[in-house]
Amino acid sequence: MTMAIPGNRKKKWPVAVLGATGAVGQMFVRLLADHPWFELKELAASERSAGKKYADVTRWLEGASPPPVIMGRRVIACDPGVVSAPIVFSALDAAVAGEVEAAFAQAGKFVLSNAKNFRMEPDVPLVIPEVNGDHLALIDCQRRNRGWPGAIVTNANCSATVAALALAPLHQKYRIKQLFLSTMQAVSGAGYPGVPSLDILANVIPYIADEEQKLEREMLKLLGRHEEGEVLNASFKVSAHTNRVPVEHGHTICMTIGFEDPPTPEEATRTLREWTGFAPTRGLPTRPEHPLVVSDAADRPQPKRDVQAGNGMTVTVGRVRRDAVLDLRLVALGHNTVRGAAGGSVLNAELLATNGALDSA
Amino acid sequence: MTMAIPGNRKKKWPVAVLGATGAVGQMFVRLLADHPWFELKELAASERSAGKKYADVTRWLEGASPPPVIMGRRVIACDPGVVSAPIVFSALDAAVAGEVEAAFAQAGKFVLSNAKNFRMEPDVPLVIPEVNGDHLALIDCQRRNRGWPGAIVTNANCSATVAALALAPLHQKYRIKQLFLSTMQAVSGAGYPGVPSLDILANVIPYIADEEQKLEREMLKLLGRHEEGEVLNASFKVSAHTNRVPVEHGHTICMTIGFEDPPTPEEATRTLREWTGFAPTRGLPTRPEHPLVVSDAADRPQPKRDVQAGNGMTVTVGRVRRDAVLDLRLVALGHNTVRGAAGGSVLNAELLATNGALDSA
Amino acid sequence: MTMAIPGNRKKKWPVAVLGATGAVGQMFVRLLADHPWFELKELAASERSAGKKYADVTRWLEGASPPPVIMGRRVIACDPGVVSAPIVFSALDAAVAGEVEAAFAQAGKFVLSNAKNFRMEPDVPLVIPEVNGDHLALIDCQRRNRGWPGAIVTNANCSATVAALALAPLHQKYRIKQLFLSTMQAVSGAGYPGVPSLDILANVIPYIADEEQKLEREMLKLLGRHEEGEVLNASFKVSAHTNRVPVEHGHTICMTIGFEDPPTPEEATRTLREWTGFAPTRGLPTRPEHPLVVSDAADRPQPKRDVQAGNGMTVTVGRVRRDAVLDLRLVALGHNTVRGAAGGSVLNAELLATNGALDSA
Amino acid sequence: MTMAIPGNRKKKWPVAVLGATGAVGQMFVRLLADHPWFELKELAASERSAGKKYADVTRWLEGASPPPVIMGRRVIACDPGVVSAPIVFSALDAAVAGEVEAAFAQAGKFVLSNAKNFRMEPDVPLVIPEVNGDHLALIDCQRRNRGWPGAIVTNANCSATVAALALAPLHQKYRIKQLFLSTMQAVSGAGYPGVPSLDILANVIPYIADEEQKLEREMLKLLGRHEEGEVLNASFKVSAHTNRVPVEHGHTICMTIGFEDPPTPEEATRTLREWTGFAPTRGLPTRPEHPLVVSDAADRPQPKRDVQAGNGMTVTVGRVRRDAVLDLRLVALGHNTVRGAAGGSVLNAELLATNGALDSA
Repeated sequence: MTMAIPGNRKKKWPVAVLGATGAVGQMFVRLLADHPWFELKELAASERSAGKKYADVTRWLEGASPPPVIMGRRVIACDPGVVSAPIVFSALDAAVAGEVEAAFAQAGKFVLSNAKNFRMEPDVPLVIPEVNGDHLALIDCQRRNRGWPGAIVTNANCSATVAALALAPLHQKYRIKQLFLSTMQAVSGAGYPGVPSLDILANVIPYIADEEQKLEREMLKLLGRHEEGEVLNASFKVSAHTNRVPVEHGHTICMTIGFEDPPTPEEATRTLREWTGFAPTRGLPTRPEHPLVVSDAADRPQPKRDVQAGNGMTVTVGRVRRDAVLDLRLVALGHNTVRGAAGGSVLNAELLATNGALDSA
Repeated sequence: MTMAIPGNRKKKWPVAVLGATGAVGQMFVRLLADHPWFELKELAASERSAGKKYADVTRWLEGASPPPVIMGRRVIACDPGVVSAPIVFSALDAAVAGEVEAAFAQAGKFVLSNAKNFRMEPDVPLVIPEVNGDHLALIDCQRRNRGWPGAIVTNANCSATVAALALAPLHQKYRIKQLFLSTMQAVSGAGYPGVPSLDILANVIPYIADEEQKLEREMLKLLGRHEEGEVLNASFKVSAHTNRVPVEHGHTICMTIGFEDPPTPEEATRTLREWTGFAPTRGLPTRPEHPLVVSDAADRPQPKRDVQAGNGMTVTVGRVRRDAVLDLRLVALGHNTVRGAAGGSVLNAELLATNGALDSA
Repeated sequence: MTMAIPGNRKKKWPVAVLGATGAVGQMFVRLLADHPWFELKELAASERSAGKKYADVTRWLEGASPPPVIMGRRVIACDPGVVSAPIVFSALDAAVAGEVEAAFAQAGKFVLSNAKNFRMEPDVPLVIPEVNGDHLALIDCQRRNRGWPGAIVTNANCSATVAALALAPLHQKYRIKQLFLSTMQAVSGAGYPGVPSLDILANVIPYIADEEQKLEREMLKLLGRHEEGEVLNASFKVSAHTNRVPVEHGHTICMTIGFEDPPTPEEATRTLREWTGFAPTRGLPTRPEHPLVVSDAADRPQPKRDVQAGNGMTVTVGRVRRDAVLDLRLVALGHNTVRGAAGGSVLNAELLATNGALDSA
Repeated sequence: MTMAIPGNRKKKWPVAVLGATGAVGQMFVRLLADHPWFELKELAASERSAGKKYADVTRWLEGASPPPVIMGRRVIACDPGVVSAPIVFSALDAAVAGEVEAAFAQAGKFVLSNAKNFRMEPDVPLVIPEVNGDHLALIDCQRRNRGWPGAIVTNANCSATVAALALAPLHQKYRIKQLFLSTMQAVSGAGYPGVPSLDILANVIPYIADEEQKLEREMLKLLGRHEEGEVLNASFKVSAHTNRVPVEHGHTICMTIGFEDPPTPEEATRTLREWTGFAPTRGLPTRPEHPLVVSDAADRPQPKRDVQAGNGMTVTVGRVRRDAVLDLRLVALGHNTVRGAAGGSVLNAELLATNGALDSA
């Protein structure tokens, strides 16, 4: 069951979305349009859109559009002097996110960012709540270091998120030594307009710019250990191929894993099934009951059939089997724009809310 | 330039296709309809089709259908007493191929088979001509062992073919120690009707029955060494994920490779580019000038754009790059029903023709 | 708001699904698994499946599978002597539906059929509840004619359903004279395994067997007038092209219409928007609040974005515009396996329930 | 057999492509790279690309890229003072084509344009050579009117081209009275990057900006009659729906037709089969032997299977059948970027070459 608003608050926290018109921005709007703890007060976007109605500058990409009260709102500029909400969700493009997000933190805002810019900074939490929610403690050090009254918290790259969620229980128990990944990623991961149909219709593109690097390095921070104000990255070796496939939503990842202390497929399956994640996340509004599900079917997970599990917040694992070279092979699938982007950020904010960090907001 | 018919022959060899109505059978028909050395005399299929016109029992799947002289021919039974051609190409289903192909070999026919049944028999050649054309020498031993006046020669599984072609030059020079593969395979690999559109439209299926096993074991035989009448399989370790993607033709394979004697990416690329394959194959009608091509583009090979290279007989390699865990990563792509099925078998027959094996046929 | 179970009933009506393992059968199971008025007691299928667990003979096609209590149930034969439920939903194939459905009606069952066999019989209602729910009165005549204690009620072909819903308000008010239709139909309309991916991936097939005839003739009965125990078909002229496109769910239909009393596009739009359908259907559990929605966007309806409107029961109309030859052009879209198949049949049963017809069941 | 270069010329005509880097520009480059009459001397594009190597500013979209001699050429500006070739093929965007093409004609160049800007000008030929090659005579009037030493000749919109080719023989013989069209158009018709994959993957978009108007009005000019220096448009009524579908190349068009003098389906089929088009086009290098082919198969034409007929220059017609409201229904398919764009323009130039118009060039 979902918790009440934490901290004896009577009112929802006012929040804003930065970069609200793009693909990830729209997903933020959808998830926040009817959120039990947060009230979506402001939609910010580029200068080009500022002053116009949200409905007039947004090509709504998927499903029913949000209620008229949101579609009719005026877009404002991504400027901390203009945005009044103390909590902002950033779907900004990496080209501008660095400067803008820092300005918001400097101005005392809590920034929940989907951009890559700050993810690998040692004093910025890179968090999947069920996996490493304790990394949020980096905020204290971040504020000290940077003299920010606000703070920045990031969620990971979409494929790193799916992989780290599937591997967290196994790494915690059997310690990964070597990891080979090969992804098949949905077009929504490239935003809108994103991948031209002439490039991907009935095709595979075995390359996504900068993706292999992001996947490899973020994985190690996500599965790292927080100790005395810093995160010690995991130290296993990881190697990735990343591919684009003609799928709308859902990144599918084939993994081959070597462990310090190798489990059998049956033990690994049991471990995945019994895992419930970082305890303080249970009951958070956006957390699914089961962050991980293991399918017994021979041919699952599949993006079309499994991407909506847990409203897009559950990662589905399948084909857990012995490997002839290392120890285990498995396949994981997750929703790249929900769990791997906007939904992950909202869940980060919820966890912050429960530990008192937002009380000043 | 293409060689003349070998052995001072004046006439083409008469050939037949077994299982001529299915997807691979059609590809055989297309490749043999206008072949400089072989004349397609007979089309054989199941009892259900026998006696009917080829056009009436075949749903032609792709491109222009063959000339009327072929489309109008009566289908005959897959029976060595009925088929008169001394050389038969088998596109038979595995459920029947074992028995039928053996009967043809017993009856003195040369059987060029695309079926899996005999591939791993120690005395049956499993051949990609440019890679291991010398394995054809197993035929002598096969005939002695089995008392067959004819013989069976097999081509490999479609994904094993693509992978082995890309790896042969590297294995020959640097000796593979460990190999991780992850495939993205076209729907034509499953034949017709094959994969239902409801299963694969905008989806990925991370499972193909029995494919990982075939890929792993055939690879080792293909890259094995022929010595004194037997093939010593390669002994490196190989681990595969096989996936079906919504692509029509072309299997794309991500590979991560460890070597005894690791090359740099530049050395590997040079080796791949300089490789010309088993010398006696040069000039064979179906052999492309370049069995392997290495693309410099960051995002190639792609099935839609590269599958027709060398009329479907060239494997395109790209993204040759250093690996953080093992030595090299690369991506290979080849046409699964041409190079990986019918075209491979026809090339096998051409090589047999040049070494005198077919002179008795 | 949804009505309570009609007729002061305390318990739900027990129902069965015939042909429960196929694509439409699965949709029936999904819609009935948690229905407020009907309790899904029995799953019937072919002899081949009878006696086995539903989960073991069903390849679940889409979304989360039904609860274990259903997946674990034994399948029974499609035999009125074996099926005990008095109400049966038939997803049977046309090859067997004629005989089996008649046997069930003869045995006193109410048969809600998705098969084409009885649709055009003069004494069998062909019903879209909001459009021609009053045609259910044909049941009395059917029972008299045939001496059946039970009855058969049919829903229409999937594309006829979408077209008739969109046209009903216009025909009622402006009387259609001429109608040109061109459909773009989803692959789920062909069932499972249905359309091979090799046929439809990145392709269009401008032909669906028998579909144009069904669409043309069913439309006229659906929009016909019930009078004194018989239905007088509508008499306008209709001409259709039907095409298969690589879309999963949702039939899109381009229509060009001439009227006796032509409306302007604005009048037509207002008429469509104000239409609420046959009054007794309001409040039925499966009826959407708006059976018809008109989109103002220039490029809607689209199957991917609109097919789920009203849980798949709402037809979306767009591009209502003047025509240069006749009077109006518009595009309509509806969910072919929900509104156009299983959902339509369930809604038929609900309407029957409210008018007392099922009281004897 | 293909004619020799007309007019006793010894050398090929030098030609340039304007807008050479885009999708249609690339198709021009491909068709002209090895043309028997024209030599591709210059590649012109926007200021942004001018001065750079063609290979460096062009994302080659399909198939093997042109020979190095072309890929390595410097792009020049679209300026008649810079382009020296007397014949230019224009793949310019409509936003700039009007001004630029006029400047080239003013400077004495022959402009073969794929842009829409001049198509409907009364003194500019809009030509499909086999259909209305005699309309080229408008050039004289154009030059007089405008005082241009050069001239502009246009090819039609891609869907208008396919429809007009299929209908020309029928209109010539039976005179069309009414025409209803519904198209299913490939994504390549929108250029590159064109349609975002998020919009069209497994979807249909029932709208293409300005396409219905272009299709309706160009059709009437194409099927019009040239008389004494002017073209009298055809006067039948035409109404179109235009739709985008997830197909790479090939526009499929469903047509329903009423005639002054209605043929039976058999007569119409015979007329289509016997039609050979405007006589002077026979033997032109780009003209296919059969501009029209009629398929007997129940489910053809299909873009995937028929788009390459006649190297993309043949239109395939199928499903010629009686209509219940008007007289005939049929389906036509043609390659939108070959026949419907670059190939059509090249064929226009070839016809100009044979009638002496280019002798001054």
